[in-house]
Amino acid sequence: MKNLDFEKVKLEGGFWKFYLDLDRKSVVHSVYRRFLETGRFDALNCNWQEGDENKPHIFWDSDVAKWIEGAAYLITNEPDSYLEGIIDELAERIAKNQREDGYFNSYFLTVAPEQIFKYRTEHELYCAGHLIEAAIAYHKATGKDKLLSCMLKYTDLIYKVFLIEDSADFVTPGHEEIELALLKLYDHLGDEKHLALARFFLDKRGNNNKDSENTKKSPAHFDDHYYQSHVPVREMTEAVGHSVRACYLYTAMAALAKKTNDENLLSACRKIYDDIVSCKMSITGGIGAEHEDESFSYKYNIPNRDTYNETCAAIALAMFAGEMQETEPDSRYGDLIERIYYNGSISGVSLDGEEYFYSNPLEVDRKKYAHSTYQTWCRRQKSFFCSCCPPNIVRMLASIPRYTYTVEGNNVYCNQFMSSSAKLKTGTLTQRTDYPHDGKVSFEYRGEPITLFVRIPHWCIEYEGAVENGFARFELSDGDSVTVILPMKVHFMEADVRVQDNSGRYAVQYGPLVYCLEEIDNGENLRDITLVDNESWEIRKEDLPAPVIYMDALRRKSTECLYRLKSDERVPLRARLIPYFAFANRDESDMIVWVTVK
Amino acid sequence: MKNLDFEKVKLEGGFWKFYLDLDRKSVVHSVYRRFLETGRFDALNCNWQEGDENKPHIFWDSDVAKWIEGAAYLITNEPDSYLEGIIDELAERIAKNQREDGYFNSYFLTVAPEQIFKYRTEHELYCAGHLIEAAIAYHKATGKDKLLSCMLKYTDLIYKVFLIEDSADFVTPGHEEIELALLKLYDHLGDEKHLALARFFLDKRGNNNKDSENTKKSPAHFDDHYYQSHVPVREMTEAVGHSVRACYLYTAMAALAKKTNDENLLSACRKIYDDIVSCKMSITGGIGAEHEDESFSYKYNIPNRDTYNETCAAIALAMFAGEMQETEPDSRYGDLIERIYYNGSISGVSLDGEEYFYSNPLEVDRKKYAHSTYQTWCRRQKSFFCSCCPPNIVRMLASIPRYTYTVEGNNVYCNQFMSSSAKLKTGTLTQRTDYPHDGKVSFEYRGEPITLFVRIPHWCIEYEGAVENGFARFELSDGDSVTVILPMKVHFMEADVRVQDNSGRYAVQYGPLVYCLEEIDNGENLRDITLVDNESWEIRKEDLPAPVIYMDALRRKSTECLYRLKSDERVPLRARLIPYFAFANRDESDMIVWVTVK
Repeated sequence: MKNLDFEKVKLEGGFWKFYLDLDRKSVVHSVYRRFLETGRFDALNCNWQEGDENKPHIFWDSDVAKWIEGAAYLITNEPDSYLEGIIDELAERIAKNQREDGYFNSYFLTVAPEQIFKYRTEHELYCAGHLIEAAIAYHKATGKDKLLSCMLKYTDLIYKVFLIEDSADFVTPGHEEIELALLKLYDHLGDEKHLALARFFLDKRGNNNKDSENTKKSPAHFDDHYYQSHVPVREMTEAVGHSVRACYLYTAMAALAKKTNDENLLSACRKIYDDIVSCKMSITGGIGAEHEDESFSYKYNIPNRDTYNETCAAIALAMFAGEMQETEPDSRYGDLIERIYYNGSISGVSLDGEEYFYSNPLEVDRKKYAHSTYQTWCRRQKSFFCSCCPPNIVRMLASIPRYTYTVEGNNVYCNQFMSSSAKLKTGTLTQRTDYPHDGKVSFEYRGEPITLFVRIPHWCIEYEGAVENGFARFELSDGDSVTVILPMKVHFMEADVRVQDNSGRYAVQYGPLVYCLEEIDNGENLRDITLVDNESWEIRKEDLPAPVIYMDALRRKSTECLYRLKSDERVPLRARLIPYFAFANRDESDMIVWVTVK
Repeated sequence: MKNLDFEKVKLEGGFWKFYLDLDRKSVVHSVYRRFLETGRFDALNCNWQEGDENKPHIFWDSDVAKWIEGAAYLITNEPDSYLEGIIDELAERIAKNQREDGYFNSYFLTVAPEQIFKYRTEHELYCAGHLIEAAIAYHKATGKDKLLSCMLKYTDLIYKVFLIEDSADFVTPGHEEIELALLKLYDHLGDEKHLALARFFLDKRGNNNKDSENTKKSPAHFDDHYYQSHVPVREMTEAVGHSVRACYLYTAMAALAKKTNDENLLSACRKIYDDIVSCKMSITGGIGAEHEDESFSYKYNIPNRDTYNETCAAIALAMFAGEMQETEPDSRYGDLIERIYYNGSISGVSLDGEEYFYSNPLEVDRKKYAHSTYQTWCRRQKSFFCSCCPPNIVRMLASIPRYTYTVEGNNVYCNQFMSSSAKLKTGTLTQRTDYPHDGKVSFEYRGEPITLFVRIPHWCIEYEGAVENGFARFELSDGDSVTVILPMKVHFMEADVRVQDNSGRYAVQYGPLVYCLEEIDNGENLRDITLVDNESWEIRKEDLPAPVIYMDALRRKSTECLYRLKSDERVPLRARLIPYFAFANRDESDMIVWVTVK
């Protein structure tokens, strides 16, 4: 089973076309501008000197690389000479400043050449991995191989230093990423050396003494769990540590397991996957609850107001699920990707494509934030010092159909719903839908006979028809069409008892969308609003890319008395609920997902 | 109106006799032992040298002083040659080591003599104030004046340095306390100089430039709000900053306002009082929600799990209310003192009198605590580095009847209920009650005719009879007796809408007692338990000094699914609720006050 490459699926309207257009029109440019202003592109000239402004940072190359990768995806979708010109020029800079032996990192070459390959915590191989991904994407988009050649040369050096000589001061990187990049490179060029190097980094992880010792040399180091170096990868059973690092690792583990039929490794991936989705994830698909170290928390600690839920972590979890989706026909992977895509990932970008959230809380209390020690925002920001999330949004939106179809011979699994035309080996599959406004999805097929499996989402409890591994099955021959109806209703969702932060509270879902209430629509003291479960809801198409819900609700009256006898007196209101991803797009406002229901 | 001194009210059984006996039998000794072990008493020898263990600390004299004050109160209640022997010996040490000019502070004399009166943040006058209170208490208890003489000499020095010469590097203390001590001293000896000095410190507070500048010289200084130095006292309208400091100040402000008929000052006290009770206090009477700086938070931010609620702050708030109680006949002051006394103050000491809470949360989640950055305990501790709370408990319990009666001529206000015999100027008033087990309170009177006003508690909504300013009125002549019935029921209480942490949640009260559920009785995941409001409750006398409540409750079932459709399936249980003050007296356990109710 292989996911169909995103470039084979052309978006032709609807929700995700809105976001693809937003990316091309706005997101890719807003990120470009900020990177330009902050000197991230200039850093590739490798001529920074002490006293100059915009001192390069250890992770800047990764920011630029993700932007290149995203821009390359946009070019793949539709030629764009402007973006191509920029990337060509950036590739020139890298080629010009790459060291004779292949090394390239704009920070270490200019600021700290004596520290090259000395500190595993310092993101060197993480930057290399993103540059490799960028080079592959641009090569596929344009056929131009300058950047790819640079990165192949750099990869050769890494192979020599780490795998042959063991001459670096550490064995595996402190921030995973290169593993999945090397596996992509292997997919792209078929060179066994790249597979071997990826396997080396995965096999050695948590499996050598040098790494832990090296980590401790860094001033701001964390423990081995933070870096997922606490045990060898095949012994992992839980998602731990920094959530972005973790999910990049798990993505690579799943990819390697499939390529090498490594059952032990796949089994570890399954345990980790289950651990995340059964006890460490917000209902929006957000992960990494701990602000302190941007990490997974303990089981069932899923706070709302205080959660971290980094945008990059949600995107990385979708990548992990995307890899797992190739291991077995099971709709749960598509369910998870859908949960992330419609909620906790795109919440990271404003509806005008100009501003970004790093952290995606499920409840905003501005008064509490004003007193918080955490770096939390009620509004999206134009950029961040650590700016990994914005370019991650660029590449995610530009390649959104990447997990839409999974193909195994003549079996075609449709995992996601979006108006599009997909080029299969066997023919062309067209999908028409107004999803997530409603659940009607029509398919038309031209080509050799196939079996189409359509994911019936977990939320779709009213679906009528046979379901197998979570999919409805249809045999399609040339010219056939089929329409699947996924009845959408307002659902009140509850969390497991052990999620104590949500006890007595419920989240509203409509189709794949999680909803929230904003103060700007519903007044102050949102935790005190009780939604009434009387089926009085009204679903409206307004000015958002997904439906708005109105429903009856109640609120208590305030009095002068701080504590008083329980009263049943309530004031009715008509609550307005908007999709979670759309919160914080107007004035500053409190927001809530988990509310009381009567 | 004057509160009747505690020594005029002899406890004769019941709830507070239990605590008074506990103090004498255990609390005073457990604190003594810990202070001895940690060198706090040795410090008074003023012979510590660099290299010695147990280096004195700036606030150690205040710890010792509060212990002396508490022990003196116990001696007042009942002669105790053992305690008297200890105090005599401590007084000797102080007398011996007091500087020629009257200065005494064991830390500054031994560790940092060059810093005397240099830093307002360093608790010098705070220690002096507590020593003055101790000296007064011991003088009243025994007639011995050695300690008092020392403190009078020290007070003379303070008068000279601060009021006459202005030769200290600051004008008013960073930690209030000496103001209320000086007013007590004025009450005790009638020397106008002490009144003048108290007034000086209050008038100058927030009213000079020297203090703010001096504060900034300390490494760990806070802003002027923290020290209540942001505005002159008569312009204060809100309770702000460090909550213990604040309430010691407000206590002194109220005392001075009464003595000098200062309406502006009294008006400030009323505003501050209203601010606390209407938006900054837990239902247990706990105050000071912010861990970070042990301070009041913003209005209506009253968290449960994360609240600080220092034991000393609750005691200090009762002191403030006790002063306010003398300003007007209004039952709300007695209501507040009752709330504090039965809940958020005695929660600070274990039922065996050996262990102490500094912070008194209204919800314990051990898993969250294990990951918290705050210094929070699930169990009471034998002592603290900063050990102000344990000796505050010693003195509070030893003098618990101090706010029981307020007298104005032949009008006698009964504010608190406890089996006791009170010596009034007009005669003897005996009170018999099993409070808080039930609300029957009987009075017998011998003496000249009086009007007895009995506080009808705010929780007692079923009281039948006329009430004036919150009091029922009875005319008593020699030999008269009267019985007041205060019907006690289980009440579900709610907090104002703006207390967002309690939205959808209710607290159980029975009489003056706030109840809690412990995991040890009710199982895990306490936030998920829903109490059933079906009057199925049962009130039992068990092994605690106050009743235990049993009532019907429901809990959800856990499933493998993290998020699922709202379900109404519930498992019944019989919940056991214990008085809040008694929590954490068995094994480590989660605990909750605010629960859902159906």
